[in-house]
Amino acid sequence: MINLYTWATPNGRKISIMLEELGLDYAVSPVDLGKREQFSAHFSAISPNHKIPAIVDTSPDSDAVVIFESGAILTYLAEKHGQLLAPQGQARYSAFEWLHWQTSALGPMLGQLGFFAVRSEEKSALAIARFTEEADRLLSVMEKQLSIHAYLAGADYSIADIACYPWVLAATPYLNDVLEQSLATKPALHRWLQLVGERPAVKRGMAVPTL
Amino acid sequence: MINLYTWATPNGRKISIMLEELGLDYAVSPVDLGKREQFSAHFSAISPNHKIPAIVDTSPDSDAVVIFESGAILTYLAEKHGQLLAPQGQARYSAFEWLHWQTSALGPMLGQLGFFAVRSEEKSALAIARFTEEADRLLSVMEKQLSIHAYLAGADYSIADIACYPWVLAATPYLNDVLEQSLATKPALHRWLQLVGERPAVKRGMAVPTL
Repeated sequence: MINLYTWATPNGRKISIMLEELGLDYAVSPVDLGKREQFSAHFSAISPNHKIPAIVDTSPDSDAVVIFESGAILTYLAEKHGQLLAPQGQARYSAFEWLHWQTSALGPMLGQLGFFAVRSEEKSALAIARFTEEADRLLSVMEKQLSIHAYLAGADYSIADIACYPWVLAATPYLNDVLEQSLATKPALHRWLQLVGERPAVKRGMAVPTL
Repeated sequence: MINLYTWATPNGRKISIMLEELGLDYAVSPVDLGKREQFSAHFSAISPNHKIPAIVDTSPDSDAVVIFESGAILTYLAEKHGQLLAPQGQARYSAFEWLHWQTSALGPMLGQLGFFAVRSEEKSALAIARFTEEADRLLSVMEKQLSIHAYLAGADYSIADIACYPWVLAATPYLNDVLEQSLATKPALHRWLQLVGERPAVKRGMAVPTL
């Protein structure tokens, strides 16, 4: 059985989508970030960076593993089950390219934009301008890739799409005031959002955790 | 032959270190960020996100590949040569954990701190406080891990150490005024910096590109 430690955030939902795509049986342990449960002794032993998601896989088909970082968990699940990541060649490393692009750029920059433009009471015009510009640039990079290929890593749906989808979906309402011009003018991004969003596993994964 | 597109930055040096560790023959194509060469048509076709590093591997032992994102390149080289990344099990996914931790957290947060605290003429106290606190937290997470294990992913040197080393080394002088208290009080981090820095391949990789 896989135990998924998660919360209602884009990073958490990457993993529930992946588990649903693979049709795996899993338990959900909500980690309430509002109650700072990510700093509990129990969770810190699993995720020393105090971030969700994390998994503990004690399935009898393999040795037990404990993994934090959504990119590492997606890689583990894809490799264990031989799905959503090509076994070799350019297709494999294109998926890793866009997976790392999401975890290193799209996620952190949209996250900082959300903090400075929406969540922080104190405002910094410098920071808002910086992260708005970078978010806009990243969404333009994504638009260009999706105007050439059906999915981020090429012809096939992969862990790279699973990583990006919850972040772009969250940006659509949350950062709409800030990114309206950027989001409204990207037809390929909207085609892809609809294509990925229609998948039954994605719909189920986006509903985890039930609060 | 592998062609490495790089510049004198921590992200670029991850790959020159890796290529030196593997003892591979490679050519270096400097991409001068000061001259905005990352936006040239030639480089944009290789790295659509306009960031270094990127590689083009046309070695006769495998199909040609073009890869951007340092995390994806490290994974490719480790898998192709069967080194610095365990083939399976907890050790493999611990390396991926700390690799993603570097690309998603340590790198972006130290990078933002460098911008707001050092490079930007205009100052935002809000942003400097936010990124100083997060950089300090991340270095504490690293200190804790390195006080338990010799290397980030456990007993063995891996691509996770290669990813983190140039970033922590760069922070030591560059952010010393901001992070002095944080850097000075971390003996395990300093032990690891010395251990990794003594490796001949690391010394050679840190000297690339020659400018």
